[in-house]
This record gives sequence, structure tokens and C-alpha cells, in this order.
Amino acid sequence: MQSEKTRIVVRKDVLADAKTDAEEERRRLRERGTLVVNLVSSPGAGKTALLQLTAQRWQQKYSMAVLVGDLETDRDAQRLSPYVPVVQLTTGGACHLEMPLVRRGLIALGDPQVDFLFIENIGNLVCPASHDLGEHLRVIILSVTDGDDKPGKYPKMFRTSHALLISKIDLLPHVPFQVENAIRDALNVQPELKAIELSAQSGAGIDQWLRMLEDARERIILSRQDASLT
Amino acid sequence: MQSEKTRIVVRKDVLADAKTDAEEERRRLRERGTLVVNLVSSPGAGKTALLQLTAQRWQQKYSMAVLVGDLETDRDAQRLSPYVPVVQLTTGGACHLEMPLVRRGLIALGDPQVDFLFIENIGNLVCPASHDLGEHLRVIILSVTDGDDKPGKYPKMFRTSHALLISKIDLLPHVPFQVENAIRDALNVQPELKAIELSAQSGAGIDQWLRMLEDARERIILSRQDASLT
Repeated sequence: MQSEKTRIVVRKDVLADAKTDAEEERRRLRERGTLVVNLVSSPGAGKTALLQLTAQRWQQKYSMAVLVGDLETDRDAQRLSPYVPVVQLTTGGACHLEMPLVRRGLIALGDPQVDFLFIENIGNLVCPASHDLGEHLRVIILSVTDGDDKPGKYPKMFRTSHALLISKIDLLPHVPFQVENAIRDALNVQPELKAIELSAQSGAGIDQWLRMLEDARERIILSRQDASLT
Repeated sequence: MQSEKTRIVVRKDVLADAKTDAEEERRRLRERGTLVVNLVSSPGAGKTALLQLTAQRWQQKYSMAVLVGDLETDRDAQRLSPYVPVVQLTTGGACHLEMPLVRRGLIALGDPQVDFLFIENIGNLVCPASHDLGEHLRVIILSVTDGDDKPGKYPKMFRTSHALLISKIDLLPHVPFQVENAIRDALNVQPELKAIELSAQSGAGIDQWLRMLEDARERIILSRQDASLT
């Protein structure tokens, strides 16, 4: 039988393990020059379409790989597989990805030395906010069809993100979405958030998105050199 | 100290309690002629807009009340309060509503004897599927901007619903959404699902939606009479 004190310590260790796991993976992938991007959004905001376009645009320029989370099907992996190495992570109904599943996905990919590793999270604006997947960049995609009130209604997801993509802006003439309101509310909960408006259909904003990724990768490579000097 | 056996019984009771709670509430509200509707969808599919329109159309015809779930804000309750008695249920970050919170909401409303009680769930296609809120009718709203692949990707939410509303059909000319594909896939996971295509903007399909609600209420009233005969 365990004493009360022992049980508390065990619980703490479990939480610490998850955090250490993510930290370790973030450091390990930084060391080899891989920028890890965790893409979150509500269902249907355009994560897969954006990754397709990113892979097409960078086919000759960078190496990349994708881990795609889904509850049950492998439809998104099928959509991406013509363009980029992809592994499907199936949660069997859970509403978010966790580090152990991401690790298994990396192993299934052959733990490749790529420039960019994208993790397409489960379509959900709540649960993924609480799970660090070892990413360097958490990107939230908000479709103009989702409504401009979402940053205030799902603040944790916006608060824990580094960048905000306002997607499907080609539909702006047809929906009551005020881009300024959405960005203002998002900056209210996370003042450091970098916002980009884009459309995978028209291609608007895609150059900015790619440049943001390149800049972020440059930063982790520089920080790696800094770390080796200390 | 509890024996292993006692602990197992306690766990079973907790689950049974939640189910009994929902069953009890469903029966109690049926007895007084209230149809309880649990509205689920991904964020921004148009739950609040549909409830606004429903309340406007039925102002002179039926009594209704709304419980609105949200993570933190009360924006949806503010949007609805000019039209209908409404109580905000704030989950403080949890991704779904549960029966105890619904009960507290009913008490806050004054436990009114209304014809229709709507519960607007958290915008989420995963977690709400597992929580019975004592509803007679679970309605899933799928926006045409969400993509027609969602029934296959979030099957539990569709499997546990009675009706499917395809919303924002005024946007069909601008998005790559095949209504037939979405309905076929939804019927694959739930063959009894009744599907209605509608738009709160244009008003298309709203008459069908209101008729479906009236029919469902008639059915619970008839079943109440059947039950009193036995």
C-alpha cells in the first residue's frame, strides 16, 4: 500500500514526464534543424488544403513531412500523400493529439531529417490547446466562415498559439466576418500573435505564410548556434 | 479503507447515476410537454443564428427557452436574450456540457413549463457526442463551409444524432461542398438520420426545420399518453 505522500509524487511525475517529453522532442528536432509546426483549428478551416499548397510550393526548395491526426479515417492523409511523406495518427475518438502518439508517428515516418515537420491536429478549438506536442510554432487557423467571435469564445486556443491564419478570405464577400474584429479580439488574448490573412483557393497570403515559416526556422537554427556557444 | 470490490461498485454507480439523471430529466420534461433539443456542431456552424430565427418565427405560437453553453463568454446568450429566455452555461474550458450544469441552468431559468427547450452545446464535433443531456432530439448542424467529409471523420457525433441540418446553403455556389456526399456519408453511420438543408440568411429550409420540431414534440406528447395507458 502507498502512503498519501507517495501517491502525490507519482501524479506529479506523470505530468512532468509529459512536459519533459515535449521539451526533449522540441530540442532534439531543433538540433537537426527541423521546425515543428502544430496546426490547430475547428473542423474544416482548411488545414489540409494549406498543407497541400505548402508542399506543392516547396517541392524543390525544402524537405518536409506531415503527421495527420484524425479520429477514425485516413482521408486527410490520402489527400496529402501525393505531395509529401505523411503518417496518419488515429486517436480512436479522442479529441486531441498527445506526445506519445506523435513519437510513434515520427518513428513510422522513419524519423526523417526534414526542414519542416507539420502536425495537423484534430479539428477542435478546445482540447488541443492543453497539449504540447513539442512544436516550435503553434498556428491557429480561423476560417472567415467560422465567425469573427471565436477568439473571445475559445481564448485558450488563441492564447497558446504563436500565429493566427485567417483562412478562406475569398469568401469574405459572402459572410458577415470582420477581419479587424477577429484580429483585435485575438490580440486581446495573445498580444504576440502574428496574423496573416490567406486563401488556399486564390493563393492570396500564401507567400506571407511561407515567409513566416522560413523566418521561424531561421530563428530556431540561430538559437541552436547560440545554445552551442553557451 | 475500501476493498477492491467496493471501489468497482462505486465507479459503476457514478456512470449509472449520469445515465439515470438524463433519463429522469427526459421523462420529467416529456411529462410536461417540453421537447428538449440538444444542438451540436463545430464552432460557427450557425446554432445561435438558427435559434434566433426560430424564436422570431415562433414568438406568437410557442413558448421556448434556451440554455447556451460556452467556454468563457456570454456572447451567444447576449445575441439570444432579445428574443427568448436564455441562461448561459459557462464550462470554464471544458469541451462539452454535462447533465448537472444543464440542471443548474434549468433552475436558473425558473424551471419553466415551455413547449421547446433548446440546449446549444459547445462548438465541438467530438466531446459532446458522449454526453446525454436528457434531450429528446439531438440535432447536428453541418455548415457547407465545414466540408462534406465531416460525417466520416467525426462519426460518433453523427451516429448519436437524430437529425442533420446542412446549414449556410446560400454559400454553396462558393464552396466545394457536395450535399449528396455529405448526406450519403451521414446516412452510412446513422441510417435513421433525417436531413434538412437550410440557410438562416436566406430562410430556405426553415419551414421544414420548424415542422420537424413540431412533429417531434407531437411524438413525445403521444408517447406520454401511451405511457399513461400502460
